[in-house]
Amino acid sequence: MTIQQLFDIQHAILQAPMVGAGSTDLVAAVSNAGGLGATGAAPMKPEGLRAHIREIREKTDQPFNVNLFSPASEMYDQSVKLGTKAKALLEDYHRELGLAELPEPRALFGPAEAQLDVLIDEKVPVISFHFGVEADHVHKIHAAGLKVISSATTIDEALTLEALGVDAVIAQGAEAGGHRGTFLGDYRQALIGTLALVPQIVDAVKIPVIAAGGIMDARGIVACRSLGAAAVQMGTAFLGCPETRIPPLWLSELKRSTPSRTTVTSAMSGKPARGLRNRYISEMESLDEPLLPYSLQYSMSVPLRKKALEIGNADFPTMWSGQGIQLLREIPAGELVSQWVAESGQLSTELAGIAI
Amino acid sequence: MTIQQLFDIQHAILQAPMVGAGSTDLVAAVSNAGGLGATGAAPMKPEGLRAHIREIREKTDQPFNVNLFSPASEMYDQSVKLGTKAKALLEDYHRELGLAELPEPRALFGPAEAQLDVLIDEKVPVISFHFGVEADHVHKIHAAGLKVISSATTIDEALTLEALGVDAVIAQGAEAGGHRGTFLGDYRQALIGTLALVPQIVDAVKIPVIAAGGIMDARGIVACRSLGAAAVQMGTAFLGCPETRIPPLWLSELKRSTPSRTTVTSAMSGKPARGLRNRYISEMESLDEPLLPYSLQYSMSVPLRKKALEIGNADFPTMWSGQGIQLLREIPAGELVSQWVAESGQLSTELAGIAI
Repeated sequence: MTIQQLFDIQHAILQAPMVGAGSTDLVAAVSNAGGLGATGAAPMKPEGLRAHIREIREKTDQPFNVNLFSPASEMYDQSVKLGTKAKALLEDYHRELGLAELPEPRALFGPAEAQLDVLIDEKVPVISFHFGVEADHVHKIHAAGLKVISSATTIDEALTLEALGVDAVIAQGAEAGGHRGTFLGDYRQALIGTLALVPQIVDAVKIPVIAAGGIMDARGIVACRSLGAAAVQMGTAFLGCPETRIPPLWLSELKRSTPSRTTVTSAMSGKPARGLRNRYISEMESLDEPLLPYSLQYSMSVPLRKKALEIGNADFPTMWSGQGIQLLREIPAGELVSQWVAESGQLSTELAGIAI
Repeated sequence: MTIQQLFDIQHAILQAPMVGAGSTDLVAAVSNAGGLGATGAAPMKPEGLRAHIREIREKTDQPFNVNLFSPASEMYDQSVKLGTKAKALLEDYHRELGLAELPEPRALFGPAEAQLDVLIDEKVPVISFHFGVEADHVHKIHAAGLKVISSATTIDEALTLEALGVDAVIAQGAEAGGHRGTFLGDYRQALIGTLALVPQIVDAVKIPVIAAGGIMDARGIVACRSLGAAAVQMGTAFLGCPETRIPPLWLSELKRSTPSRTTVTSAMSGKPARGLRNRYISEMESLDEPLLPYSLQYSMSVPLRKKALEIGNADFPTMWSGQGIQLLREIPAGELVSQWVAESGQLSTELAGIAI
């Protein structure tokens, strides 16, 4: 079965769900163009999530994907306290930006159970989980006649997800922006480039493989199909779209950066994620002190990041980005999808004629 | 101009030069099959190198590539001493394997000037440099009517190499096995996945781009051509060939490992390189002490690595490997090249028909 048949979509292009960067307009634009739009719902409370889904449905009658974080990702040792060096650094930052006292650490995402109930109730066609997936969630989603996918960053993770019954696995290469989906073992051993990861996962599993990480245009799309992927998932490639509405500062920093500025760091959220290195990441990493667990670490910089974006200070905000950064294009998402489809068709025709 | 025209070869497949893994049989097998065979000559003394080249020429009349390390890579601070913790650890290892006293640190490679003179004298058709290239070497090689190529791990490095006048640039993605070619800045900012690196370098330079890193079969070859590469360079993909004659222990460890076991470490040689993690790497890294500069660090484990290979102990040897490890095939190199060419033709024809 093709991905197009599996998800009832026209083109094998999935938009990566991006908390903090997406919008219902982006989801709808991608889905209306025949791809699979997606929304990152992890921070949404159940009723807000329901309203969000209904807003998407007002803008498109096509299938779309809503992403949650596996509940396992929200389990942490409650006894871990903010380090003294981190506290002093954060207090310095607050003084520098004229902010009040530090917030109390709190969990920012989930609870996934309540969120999932809304998605099932609203019959969201494709539900994806990051940081692994629970067997009973897979059963629940399938019992409702919906599809479920999740990300693997290693061959082992892909085999685990297949055994759990997901409909397709996203092979998330090391190039990908945002949080590493790694849920088994050390993330540093799970930074496998897309070009190497995809064919090895394709050979290991029987379910369709969706390639992700560093795919920015028709060249990347056709390359991933050549590697055996049934589809691609693209995130950073949509960050220049007007529908994305990322903070202007984030976009301008992306436009003036090379892939060398991206780094995989846990300093921002407590879990490893790829984004643009800035002062916050560098100074937090250099403390050489255990971080708060995810997402408590993330919660400590909420006021700081908000204020920094307001005043145009790039030292503090989260600016997730993949390594394909210089290939960013600033055109509407629907147009982008249509161009990728046309260009991919042309490129694959040209490739048939080349001499190896 | 195509790579085939540039190097006067039939197929746009380059074998990566691999110190410690190659052989004149491998070079000849690849070149005789229409690809560009290569030898890693950095450790060879001038007269040995001349004999080696003549041996290759007895086995093939086709073009081939000889690789040297840039002389800049051999410049180091002579005052840096072996750390006390490293010394104690190495002494423990020597006792464990019943070896004599530690060797004195020494440079293992070059001198590139004398090596290059031999290559030019012997009219080696393609000369490649790792760790950057010197402007006067490029001039010398071109004055002799020969070709010169070098590796870039970032867009900046590719632009630098182009400005220096190389005939083609190898875009070495983070998946690649062996030494990172990084010569500008911190290697950790130059671990860019092949899928993201290749199209960005293709867009940045006017010279042909050769993709390297994680390419193991026709899927990887066609993928890289789709990304805009004029050719591919494959190293790990040849490690299972009988002509390669790597130590049996290295091969058996490769066959039982996943990409997660590969790591980029400076602990082995003093410069970052990707290989299979073993006890030596883990314990040397955990000392948290400055290493000797390249290649002095490498020289300290020469007796240890030799002995370990003899007795089949995988704790100590160098076992470079890229991340495509599970796609290794154990067939003769010439057959491998012919299969890749045939399969690439078939795959690119199939791709022309797929619906994106």
